[in-house]
Amino acid sequence: MNLHEIASRSRAASYDLSVSSVEKRNKALSLMIDYLERDRELIFDSNKVDVAEAESEGLAAPLLHRLVFAGDKLKQVQAGLRSLISLEDPIGHTVFCHEITEGLKLYRVTCSIGVIGVIFESRPDALVQITSLAVKSGNSVILKGGREALRTNQALIHSIRSALDDAGFSPDAAQLLETREDVSAMLKEDALIDLVIPRGSNAFVRYIMDNSRIPVLGHADGICHVYVDQDADLNLAFKVALDSKIQNLSVCNAEETLLVHRNIAERFLPEFAGMLTENHVEIRGDEMTGSLIQCKPASEEDWKTEYLDAILSIRVVSSLEQAIEHINHYGSHHTDCIITENDEAAKTFLDRVDSAGVYRNVSTRFADGFVYGFGAEVGISTGKIHSRGPMGLEGLTTYKYKLLGNGQTMAEMKSGARRYTHRILQEDCPL
Amino acid sequence: MNLHEIASRSRAASYDLSVSSVEKRNKALSLMIDYLERDRELIFDSNKVDVAEAESEGLAAPLLHRLVFAGDKLKQVQAGLRSLISLEDPIGHTVFCHEITEGLKLYRVTCSIGVIGVIFESRPDALVQITSLAVKSGNSVILKGGREALRTNQALIHSIRSALDDAGFSPDAAQLLETREDVSAMLKEDALIDLVIPRGSNAFVRYIMDNSRIPVLGHADGICHVYVDQDADLNLAFKVALDSKIQNLSVCNAEETLLVHRNIAERFLPEFAGMLTENHVEIRGDEMTGSLIQCKPASEEDWKTEYLDAILSIRVVSSLEQAIEHINHYGSHHTDCIITENDEAAKTFLDRVDSAGVYRNVSTRFADGFVYGFGAEVGISTGKIHSRGPMGLEGLTTYKYKLLGNGQTMAEMKSGARRYTHRILQEDCPL
Repeated sequence: MNLHEIASRSRAASYDLSVSSVEKRNKALSLMIDYLERDRELIFDSNKVDVAEAESEGLAAPLLHRLVFAGDKLKQVQAGLRSLISLEDPIGHTVFCHEITEGLKLYRVTCSIGVIGVIFESRPDALVQITSLAVKSGNSVILKGGREALRTNQALIHSIRSALDDAGFSPDAAQLLETREDVSAMLKEDALIDLVIPRGSNAFVRYIMDNSRIPVLGHADGICHVYVDQDADLNLAFKVALDSKIQNLSVCNAEETLLVHRNIAERFLPEFAGMLTENHVEIRGDEMTGSLIQCKPASEEDWKTEYLDAILSIRVVSSLEQAIEHINHYGSHHTDCIITENDEAAKTFLDRVDSAGVYRNVSTRFADGFVYGFGAEVGISTGKIHSRGPMGLEGLTTYKYKLLGNGQTMAEMKSGARRYTHRILQEDCPL
Repeated sequence: MNLHEIASRSRAASYDLSVSSVEKRNKALSLMIDYLERDRELIFDSNKVDVAEAESEGLAAPLLHRLVFAGDKLKQVQAGLRSLISLEDPIGHTVFCHEITEGLKLYRVTCSIGVIGVIFESRPDALVQITSLAVKSGNSVILKGGREALRTNQALIHSIRSALDDAGFSPDAAQLLETREDVSAMLKEDALIDLVIPRGSNAFVRYIMDNSRIPVLGHADGICHVYVDQDADLNLAFKVALDSKIQNLSVCNAEETLLVHRNIAERFLPEFAGMLTENHVEIRGDEMTGSLIQCKPASEEDWKTEYLDAILSIRVVSSLEQAIEHINHYGSHHTDCIITENDEAAKTFLDRVDSAGVYRNVSTRFADGFVYGFGAEVGISTGKIHSRGPMGLEGLTTYKYKLLGNGQTMAEMKSGARRYTHRILQEDCPL
């Protein structure tokens, strides 16, 4: 099948999904739980082949670890599906109702987006998460996973498609692409695909943007900052700045740069440097930092780097404003935190830092769809359009305007035969 | 100044606008009313030169008409500014509040987008509308108007920039580009510009999408349909189908294709054809239409064409489903209407037609930001991402997550020392 045919089928499947009852969509999710269980041996065996091949090709240990799909991963994925079933239906809600003129009511009603292309990395469990979020929100997905997980993904999509089929949906609501050429071809189908979500490196996301007219939502880098203000509580600062860095080194919401106000640097940095060293974190500091603690010198490049590793860059700043400027200039608009007891400084930071998540006195590691109470996420958006931060079910929906009248014409409005009432009503759309 | 410098200044100005009080932003709008009055002679004189030049170059009459900026246009623009001042502040609203764990609260708060590039057509009044909507919502704009309106736009932007200046904002919150090369250069500034809104032809919007990584929102074609169902009230159908076509021929929400159910075609079409002919509307019909009324034959191309003229294509369909398929296939996802007394048919149409506006028994001409009660619009979005249909103040805003804690770490969550509470609270963000 060529990509145009795949996208056409996905579009057709999306129209049925978009008008189906939430019970029917939940039934598909529930069958996914069952069929993943039924097919577990096939899935695990396929994964063993993928893992063995990746090992023989010398895939790095952390990536190999993410590739493994065994009993505990299956249980997690099934638990995720159960929690998704329990979430409220995100589509068909009346957001507001305006009476425009007598007998004419405008309803904004949430609805699914349509066809979503998702390109994701090596974790096969991401395939189930993404597909199930899409189905729950009434969307079709066209998926492309990592090459190293191909057999596992094929086994998983087989179970998912049978669940869709047996719930009364077209299995084409979830289709798996297998090659890079398929992705290139998919990017041309802007008449049939509504949104592309790439998960991957900054360069990869830019490649997608440069090669498609389809809107792109996704996150590029996560260069998160913690700024220790002059009015910080020192113990709280130690705790939060350390957790943001070391709790998980390889995630997008980990701290990459620490900024410290010069009035507190002498009290904060020496003790904090000890904590970092104890946790095997390499420090790269600016000149002022280097005069207070032992560290490698930080280059301009360091401020722009997402290490995803046991490295922290540190800069001493002379003011709150300088900290904000640094973050807006070098950051990636993901998540940034101020440590301060001063309400005014906190407000200035939260208002002026141009990021999806702006935190006060809490670890950057909290930037996550599950943590935020969204159930799950398809990714974290560092853009500002449509969806910002963790994208859950709501990020996969849009709205339409339903206008219900009884023969109103613009000629009547222009002539004054009818007049605008523009009343806000508390009413759900009856259709 | 090169475009990078222009965009950098726009970005800097946007940060101050984004945190300013609504009183200060309203003050700028109010000064715009005054300064446009103060500078009226300069503006009118500049416009006269533009119009004379356009006339000598043979600009078509409807475009010439749009180019004129005289006393009545100034009054309209000033009335628009007054109505905008009276609208509620769109930024700084807490959308929701979640308690994540004890003492840790997540607030989603609306905020401005940042820097918006707008490319608009020959009407100079659009410059004031767009800029004032941007200022009210805390955004900077970089504007590019039609070449033929350059002197008028220069005069208008001068008054607007003095108003910004005297209200205490940087005048660089509103900058006017003058050449096509400037637009090309602007499209490269994806690190500094957050959104581009092109108003123009389908081909022009595609050119923008193909040449920028900046998200694009805008409308391309408006191919709007009216479908007369077998259960239509005939008199209502005549009235709405006619108004949708003739009330204003050259606008994006005018009807371009009429679909008629075959069970009602014999009763509807002959009389309706008489009304069209009376109003000098040319008819292009499919074979079945041609067997019922006199008309030119419609080609495949007709179904894809936005005439913006006194032409209507007509097709007889054998079912509601065929009408929906036609609209989803050939339409532009702008606004489409069903005429029916049958609730079930109406619901199917409203749910399955994949357009920003789906109407029952009312003219398509109602698709407009003022009519919808949004005060004004920067354009009508036919995409599904971020904003759909008429884009008013809300379309120029996004949100950020403010997370306020007192030292919470992910290590505590993972160890179970703290647990997730995930309570929804009715609370505004205190910072």
